[in-house]
Amino acid sequence: MITVLRLGHRIERDKRLSTHVALSARVLGCSGLLYSGEKDENMENSVNNVVKNWGGNFRISHIDDWKRKIKKFNGIKVHLTMYGIPFQDKMAELRKKKDMMIIVGGEKVPFEVYQMADYNLAVTSQPHSEVAALALLLHEYFQGKELEKAFPHAKRKIIPQERGKKVLGK
Amino acid sequence: MITVLRLGHRIERDKRLSTHVALSARVLGCSGLLYSGEKDENMENSVNNVVKNWGGNFRISHIDDWKRKIKKFNGIKVHLTMYGIPFQDKMAELRKKKDMMIIVGGEKVPFEVYQMADYNLAVTSQPHSEVAALALLLHEYFQGKELEKAFPHAKRKIIPQERGKKVLGK
Repeated sequence: MITVLRLGHRIERDKRLSTHVALSARVLGCSGLLYSGEKDENMENSVNNVVKNWGGNFRISHIDDWKRKIKKFNGIKVHLTMYGIPFQDKMAELRKKKDMMIIVGGEKVPFEVYQMADYNLAVTSQPHSEVAALALLLHEYFQGKELEKAFPHAKRKIIPQERGKKVLGK
Repeated sequence: MITVLRLGHRIERDKRLSTHVALSARVLGCSGLLYSGEKDENMENSVNNVVKNWGGNFRISHIDDWKRKIKKFNGIKVHLTMYGIPFQDKMAELRKKKDMMIIVGGEKVPFEVYQMADYNLAVTSQPHSEVAALALLLHEYFQGKELEKAFPHAKRKIIPQERGKKVLGK
């Protein structure tokens, strides 16, 4: 079970990026997204609508006390940061653990997060995107098997096409 | 040489997502981002500032006539879309080609894009994020070697840490 914790969501600035974090987490094998900062009903609705239409059991929840959530989490805690150790060096270790929380920061990450995490991991030591970093971490963690994940109870299903769109149940 | 073409950028809605597309493209081995839609000086400045501080030769440019750019591009044209063929089935073919344009859509992608692309490829047949899709495509294309890419002429350089931040030249 992998949970993503998105810190410090701000509706105005982050609505689309946090939604992309959530949808990428869903599709790449995570069971849910917790987020702190501003509660965002619109974001929750758009993620929940994707789950309703496209299947699976992904859950999104707002939390108030992120410190408590990290402390109480019973599993390995991975903080994604460009200042950390190259993630590819730690994948074999991470794969041995069963439950994982992946912490994805906002603009300014409190120093406590670096201390509370079991691993501070970098997907390249360069500034880029928490969405890309999360995607690559999950892809390496699952070694590509996440791409074959099934989404039960879907109302809609895409039939892959060389050109154009084919959606069942639309 | 890999160029990313971002279609239909809208300043208000896409400023941060298109920036994430650009920065992910830069860090994962692309040489530049072309974008159509609204010209966005702020986005260009933030990408150019990253290049100035963190090195490499990535270029971002606004274009008016995306159809012409796609048509004239001398190389393989890959359109990322959730309606396409699973990307992992085509990676061996793509790796044989030298120059590639990766087309990343906005909200509504004109049907011509599906027709003009040599490949319409899906990173899962599920809705998620163009940033995640681009990251996974590039990671598989370069088979992880992109993570060791050097960025010449950088003013700043991160020294990876287990905990905390260490930046040279700050």
